[in-house]
Amino acid sequence: MTESYDAVDVIVTKRDKGELSDGQIDWVIDAYTRGVVAHEQMSSLAMAILLNGMTRREIARWTSAMIASGERMDFSALSRPTADKHSTGGVGDKITLPLAPLVAACGVAVPQLSGRGLGHTGGTLDKLESVPGWQASLTNEQMLRQLEDVGAVICAAGEGLAPADKKLYALRDVTGTVEAIPLIASSIMSKKIAEGTGALVLDVKVGSGAFMKTVEDARELARTMVDLGTDAGVRTVAMLTNMQVPLGLTAGNALEVRESVEVLAGGGPQDVVELTVALAREMLTAAGREDADPADALADGRAMDAWHRMIRAQGGDPEAPLPVAKEAEDVLAPVDGVLTQLDALKVGVAAWRLGAGRARKEDPVQAGAGVELHAKPGATVRAGERLLTLHTDTPERFSRALEALDGSFTIAPDGSRPDLLPLVIEKIA
Amino acid sequence: MTESYDAVDVIVTKRDKGELSDGQIDWVIDAYTRGVVAHEQMSSLAMAILLNGMTRREIARWTSAMIASGERMDFSALSRPTADKHSTGGVGDKITLPLAPLVAACGVAVPQLSGRGLGHTGGTLDKLESVPGWQASLTNEQMLRQLEDVGAVICAAGEGLAPADKKLYALRDVTGTVEAIPLIASSIMSKKIAEGTGALVLDVKVGSGAFMKTVEDARELARTMVDLGTDAGVRTVAMLTNMQVPLGLTAGNALEVRESVEVLAGGGPQDVVELTVALAREMLTAAGREDADPADALADGRAMDAWHRMIRAQGGDPEAPLPVAKEAEDVLAPVDGVLTQLDALKVGVAAWRLGAGRARKEDPVQAGAGVELHAKPGATVRAGERLLTLHTDTPERFSRALEALDGSFTIAPDGSRPDLLPLVIEKIA
Repeated sequence: MTESYDAVDVIVTKRDKGELSDGQIDWVIDAYTRGVVAHEQMSSLAMAILLNGMTRREIARWTSAMIASGERMDFSALSRPTADKHSTGGVGDKITLPLAPLVAACGVAVPQLSGRGLGHTGGTLDKLESVPGWQASLTNEQMLRQLEDVGAVICAAGEGLAPADKKLYALRDVTGTVEAIPLIASSIMSKKIAEGTGALVLDVKVGSGAFMKTVEDARELARTMVDLGTDAGVRTVAMLTNMQVPLGLTAGNALEVRESVEVLAGGGPQDVVELTVALAREMLTAAGREDADPADALADGRAMDAWHRMIRAQGGDPEAPLPVAKEAEDVLAPVDGVLTQLDALKVGVAAWRLGAGRARKEDPVQAGAGVELHAKPGATVRAGERLLTLHTDTPERFSRALEALDGSFTIAPDGSRPDLLPLVIEKIA
Repeated sequence: MTESYDAVDVIVTKRDKGELSDGQIDWVIDAYTRGVVAHEQMSSLAMAILLNGMTRREIARWTSAMIASGERMDFSALSRPTADKHSTGGVGDKITLPLAPLVAACGVAVPQLSGRGLGHTGGTLDKLESVPGWQASLTNEQMLRQLEDVGAVICAAGEGLAPADKKLYALRDVTGTVEAIPLIASSIMSKKIAEGTGALVLDVKVGSGAFMKTVEDARELARTMVDLGTDAGVRTVAMLTNMQVPLGLTAGNALEVRESVEVLAGGGPQDVVELTVALAREMLTAAGREDADPADALADGRAMDAWHRMIRAQGGDPEAPLPVAKEAEDVLAPVDGVLTQLDALKVGVAAWRLGAGRARKEDPVQAGAGVELHAKPGATVRAGERLLTLHTDTPERFSRALEALDGSFTIAPDGSRPDLLPLVIEKIA
C-alpha cells in the first residue's frame, strides 16, 4: 500500500451513494485485515454497501482485495483439469458428497474446500465427519497428493485463504449485514478464486430453505458471481435450482451420507440423482471434458470406487456402519390427499433443532440427528401414514422441532397438483 | 429491562425499513450503554437509521432511552424560571457569551451546559478558557448556587447526563454516521432535556459553515427537535439562522471573547447584536417573561454586570487582558469592488488550522489564534485594503490556513449586491 486513506471518507463515499475507488477498496480491506480500520467502521461500511449497492467494478476490486489478503493455491502442476462446485446452501443439500467422486471418476479433479453448517443449512464437513475415522483437515501437500491420486478431495479451507473474508464474514454475521449481494458474491468468489480451481459451477438455491427467496435475487447473485469468476479467469457457470422443498429424503449428517451412498450405488431419490448428474455435466463441460458421461460413471460403479478411495484417503472407513440417533418420532399424515407442499426452511430448522446443526460455530453437532421424509410433494398420502421421522439422541428436543414443523406441509384433495418451481430453474453462463 | 431482544433482529428491522418498537429501542440503548450490544452492532444500526430514517415516535423513544441512561437535573427549586439556548454550531458563533448574561439580567436563569470544539466550529468552553483563571468544571451544587446567585452559568456538561449519547456520539464520529437527523436531534435533545431546563431556544444554523447546508435539512432538524422538546414538556422554539458567512468579525477563542465583551458594552458587530437580542427575546418569551426588554438590558449595562459576575463566579478575571497570538498575517483585497461572498466554512477551517480548533478531542487549542474579518459581504473594498488578518502562535500554520482560504471570498464590480439568506431565516415553534 503506497497511499493512505481515511476510513470515514470511505464510509461517507458509499453512504452518499458514491463509487469507491480502487485505491479506497484496496486500502480498506488491507487496513481492516491489519486492524487499522476498526470493526465498527467496517460494519457501518457494510451496511452502506448493503443499502446502496456496488458497481460491477467495485465488486470485482473488493473480491481481488480479499484474495490479496491471503495465499492463493495453484493446481497447474496436476495432470488433470480442475473443477469445483459451490452451493449457496439448502436443506438436504448433500450433492457435494456424490458429485465430487462422480466428477473425479470422469477424469476431472475436484478440490472442494468446504465449511461447517451454521443455522438451518447443513455443512458438508459435518456430514462427512459422521463417517467413522474421516478427517476434515489436510495440509496443502496432502490435498495436492490426494487430488493427483484420487481426483477428489473434500476438506476444510485453510486459514490462509482470504483471511479478510473470514474476518468480514464473522462481522457481518453479528451486524445484520449478511444479506448484501455484493458482499455475498465477493465472499464466495474470493475463496473460490484463491483456491485456484480452473472451472467453477455455482448452485444458487432459490426458495424458502435458501438464502435467496426469489428467482430475481438469485439471478442477480448468480450473475454477479459468474462475472467475478469470468473476470478472474475461472470458467464459471451458475445454475438456479429449487430450494422450496428439501433435496432428497433426508436432512441431517449421517442420514445424508447414507442417501449419498445410495445415489453412488445407482439408487437414491430422483431429485438428488438428477441434480448430481446435471451439475457433474456442467463441471465436466467447464473443465473441457464434455465427452465424459457422468450417468455412465454412476451406473457402472466408477463413482462409488472414487468415493471409497476419497473417504479412505482421509482416514475414513466407507464400509463402517453410520451412526444412528437413539430416538425417533414419526409425524403422520392427518388426512388423505396429495402432498402439495413441504417447506424446506421448516424442515431445515427442525433438523437443526434436533441436533443436526449448530447455533454458534463452537457448538457440537449430533451425527445421527435429522429429519427423514417419507413423501415429497406430488405424492398421494393416506391418513395415518408416516410423512416424516424425526431423529435425535436427545428426546427433549422433539417438542421444539415439532413446533418448527407447524404448517410445514399441505395435503390437498386427491387430484391436486403442487405448484413448484422446476428442480433446475435456469442456467447463467 | 424485563424483556431481552436480539441485536441482529433490531438492526435487520431498521435495515429493512421497519419501525423499531419501544421495547427494541429501550433495550438497544440500555444494552449498548452496558456493553452488551457491541460497537460494531450499534454502528451498522446507526448507518441503517441514517439511510432509512426514523418516525417521530421512534425518535422520541430513542431520546427518552438516552435520557434514562443517566441522571436528570432539576431546577424546580430555583426562584426564577430557566431557559437555555443550543446552537447547532457555526463559525464565529460566540452568541452564548453575551446571551447568557443578557438573559440572566432580565430575570431568567440560564443553565448553559456546553462542549468543546471539534473540527471547524469553535467550542464555547474553549472560548471562555481564554479568560484568565476561568474554570469550566463545576459540581451540580456549584452550578445551582451560581444559577441562584448570578442567574447564568456556562460550564462543562457532567459525565452523568445521557452517557448513552456520549458513547454513541464518539462512535458516530468515527463511523460516518454523524449526519443522521434522527441521531443529531436525539443527541442534542437528550442532553438538553436531561439538563432540566424549562424552556429552550434552538439556533439551527444553515449554510456552508453549518452542519445543515440547506434550509430544507435545517427545517427538518429544527422541526424534529421542537417536537422532541415539546413532547418532553420543555417549551421549545427553533430559529433557522444564516451560517453562509461567519458571525461577527472574529473566529477564534480570545478573539470572540473580545467581540462578545464589545457587544455587552453596547457596541460590537451588528449581526452579533441582532442575533443575541433576537435569541434573548425568544428565551425570555419561552420562559414567560415576554415583558422584559433585552435591548434595554444591553444598553444600560445590566448585561455587562451579569457577565462580570458570571466570569468571577467561575474564577475568571473579566478585567484581565485577553491572550493575543504572537504572529499575524494579513490577506488583502486584490481588486476594487463589493465583497459579495465570504465563505463561513473556509474561514472556520482556516481558524482551526491556525490553532483555534482541534482535530482530536485531546488536542490543545491556542487562545489567541483565529481569523479577524475587516469586511463583511455588502461592504465596498479597495485593492490593497485588509480583508482578513490571521493570528497564530505558530507561524508555520499560515500556509495551510491560506490554502483553506483559497476561493473564500468574491469581490464583484462596484454596485453589485450579495445574494445571501437573511440573518434570521424563519422561526419554528
